[in-house]
Amino acid sequence: MPMVPDRTRDTVPTAPGIQTQTPLITLTSDFNTPYPAAMKGVLATRTDARLIDVAHDFPPQDVRTAAFWLREILPYFPPAVHLAVVDPGVGTDRRALVLRAGDHALIGPDNGLLLPAGRRLAADQALEAFAIDPEAISTPVPQGVRAMAGSHTFDGRDLFAPAAALVAHPDSDIDSLVADGTLEAVPLEDLVDCSFPEPRVDDGERATGSVLVIDGFGNVITNIPGRLLDDQYGASARVNGESAPVARSYAHVAESSRLLTVGSHGFVELAVNGGRGDVAFDVTVGDAVTLTLE
Amino acid sequence: MPMVPDRTRDTVPTAPGIQTQTPLITLTSDFNTPYPAAMKGVLATRTDARLIDVAHDFPPQDVRTAAFWLREILPYFPPAVHLAVVDPGVGTDRRALVLRAGDHALIGPDNGLLLPAGRRLAADQALEAFAIDPEAISTPVPQGVRAMAGSHTFDGRDLFAPAAALVAHPDSDIDSLVADGTLEAVPLEDLVDCSFPEPRVDDGERATGSVLVIDGFGNVITNIPGRLLDDQYGASARVNGESAPVARSYAHVAESSRLLTVGSHGFVELAVNGGRGDVAFDVTVGDAVTLTLE
Amino acid sequence: MPMVPDRTRDTVPTAPGIQTQTPLITLTSDFNTPYPAAMKGVLATRTDARLIDVAHDFPPQDVRTAAFWLREILPYFPPAVHLAVVDPGVGTDRRALVLRAGDHALIGPDNGLLLPAGRRLAADQALEAFAIDPEAISTPVPQGVRAMAGSHTFDGRDLFAPAAALVAHPDSDIDSLVADGTLEAVPLEDLVDCSFPEPRVDDGERATGSVLVIDGFGNVITNIPGRLLDDQYGASARVNGESAPVARSYAHVAESSRLLTVGSHGFVELAVNGGRGDVAFDVTVGDAVTLTLE
Repeated sequence: MPMVPDRTRDTVPTAPGIQTQTPLITLTSDFNTPYPAAMKGVLATRTDARLIDVAHDFPPQDVRTAAFWLREILPYFPPAVHLAVVDPGVGTDRRALVLRAGDHALIGPDNGLLLPAGRRLAADQALEAFAIDPEAISTPVPQGVRAMAGSHTFDGRDLFAPAAALVAHPDSDIDSLVADGTLEAVPLEDLVDCSFPEPRVDDGERATGSVLVIDGFGNVITNIPGRLLDDQYGASARVNGESAPVARSYAHVAESSRLLTVGSHGFVELAVNGGRGDVAFDVTVGDAVTLTLE
Repeated sequence: MPMVPDRTRDTVPTAPGIQTQTPLITLTSDFNTPYPAAMKGVLATRTDARLIDVAHDFPPQDVRTAAFWLREILPYFPPAVHLAVVDPGVGTDRRALVLRAGDHALIGPDNGLLLPAGRRLAADQALEAFAIDPEAISTPVPQGVRAMAGSHTFDGRDLFAPAAALVAHPDSDIDSLVADGTLEAVPLEDLVDCSFPEPRVDDGERATGSVLVIDGFGNVITNIPGRLLDDQYGASARVNGESAPVARSYAHVAESSRLLTVGSHGFVELAVNGGRGDVAFDVTVGDAVTLTLE
Repeated sequence: MPMVPDRTRDTVPTAPGIQTQTPLITLTSDFNTPYPAAMKGVLATRTDARLIDVAHDFPPQDVRTAAFWLREILPYFPPAVHLAVVDPGVGTDRRALVLRAGDHALIGPDNGLLLPAGRRLAADQALEAFAIDPEAISTPVPQGVRAMAGSHTFDGRDLFAPAAALVAHPDSDIDSLVADGTLEAVPLEDLVDCSFPEPRVDDGERATGSVLVIDGFGNVITNIPGRLLDDQYGASARVNGESAPVARSYAHVAESSRLLTVGSHGFVELAVNGGRGDVAFDVTVGDAVTLTLE
């Protein structure tokens, strides 16, 4: 029997609800290649979980950008273990974390990377944090290597991937890992946090915010809520003093023309049809953006 | 018992014919990272299908290049659902398509991206097109987000991935999706097409064609059929007036030397052993190429 | 019941030992996109094996760099078939190889790419080499293509992927492929080898080595064993005459400062906290590195 699609776009549809039998682990890092493959080898040695990459080309050591994208992308996944490593403090005594966020778990360093996504994934359920005891984790030893000098530069492979395999494993879970001392509960307020600036929306016609990230197309993602542009398609707005049309999507303006639109994360984006918004609007991450409807 | 390999290279071998139990979805886009991960999250929420990436780094908005590669790469896959999104018209009223091509299905925008591959995959079987009713598709709602302003900029995630999950799902198929109104048959001649220029082969010794694409190595892929070079290995030919050796493969000429060869898609390619053919032959996509055997 | 983690970091822990039911194939090349997808299509047509990418962006035709990374990364994988193609001699009569290395198999060209990893994976078990008879391999024919001119430029798709599918297939194995003539044993000493320079360690306080590779972060990976830095954290050493601190990891020195550390492969690495070591130390692959403890 075919599934009956939900035809009411305006209500929140539930997903069709296929429960996959195989656990799922997502991987995120700034490692490019081939380092993520070492993490995958460790995971494949210890678990049958499906592996899906989020990205491994985030800007090196840029915790904030990766935290933003994790918050925006992970909520589209079914319950999963999310392994994320952007870790400038690798090898220091910064904490190694597991967050339990509803039916999801996040694993990575305690540097703010995980919390924005964790809060989103937890939604109405509890968000809990646990510190990983590194001594309780079985460090992977590569085949054919007798004695390797101790390295402290790749916890993604040596600590976080093994921890993710434990959490994803059908025979263990966070509670049992707490019980055997591998994990220890930590108050959320003890964690390093990462927050994004809040915009100021004055009267539904004017907002002051800033640039959160710029994507690979050059689209400028601000923190200004997209609802400000409701019913404004076809009108125009001033961005930092200059006028630009408000459009439903890119191709509603001429090729190479600027536009304001509601991006795929629900924020106002500054874009160019077939070009780069960051260049055309001359803004970069962190810059202030003032938006006034006309 | 070991499989008996087909030892006759000159006949068309049948694939050993492992029927995988799990449906397969391939993904293609110009999204780079991390946007494809949002599509994968949506797919993983709705289907157990295996996911294999074709590429996500096609030139932005370049429908033609992506259409070429889909035509050349997808025919190596077993029956699958192919999700492909290079979509400069996202958010406009351009049609959203499902093509049924033999045992394959292709899903993406109606802008020419899918048709060349669809014709190839259909082979002797029927090629049929169906428009997706966007209102019949259950838009994914990210976990932890109550109300998101309507965005019309990421149909890969919001429309095409859900449609691909429906088509790949064991409990639905294209016919059932037509029956319940999710899909509606469209005549092929109503679709936006994408065709590649045809070469002119004069007398088996001279051909005039053009450059279709340039690959990441700098190999220049023309539309001139490789059979023109049959039995010519060791001879030479004039390309746009300049002589170059015809070789079976790169290492048959000296390091950094130019050559003509039959590329992996069966077309004449202009290449350099250990270098870039596009630079050495000074040609770019769309340029005319005249080839004369010497 | 939860797994009991191995708490003894100083002994060699055994992996928790999940035996996955599905065979695993890793893929490595210098193909970038979309060519690896053609190999994956061929594999998916012939086997249900899981596919995991090691990397496809190794420097073009750089057998040595890829051989290094295969040696360092593959030992983290469980028993698998490793398909690796960096193949400047494609289309020549260079041998096509299968290496049996303990419970692993490696498949690729006979140009030195596989041997370093093969020796590592074999560990105490036998390392054996077999030549693939190309005539015994069923070349994939793309769907919808009647007659394609013979191309000899993409053995990854046409020869190595089919061979990997045979080796990974539950109904065949290397012995059966030898028995039916698909494979033929070759003495190891007949293979093209790839070796990396050995460092000279004088007295535990001075070593002369060289740069093996530089990773994507700019970390300079030398061949000097990391044990030279044992108990030296906090001290300093002279690298090619200039002093730099020895540190457990990057963040133990100030932002943008140079350091020496034990990298994740057990070698001395020259790095910069939050920057590029290759730039700061002004070295490139092959350069000599003299290290003197202070």
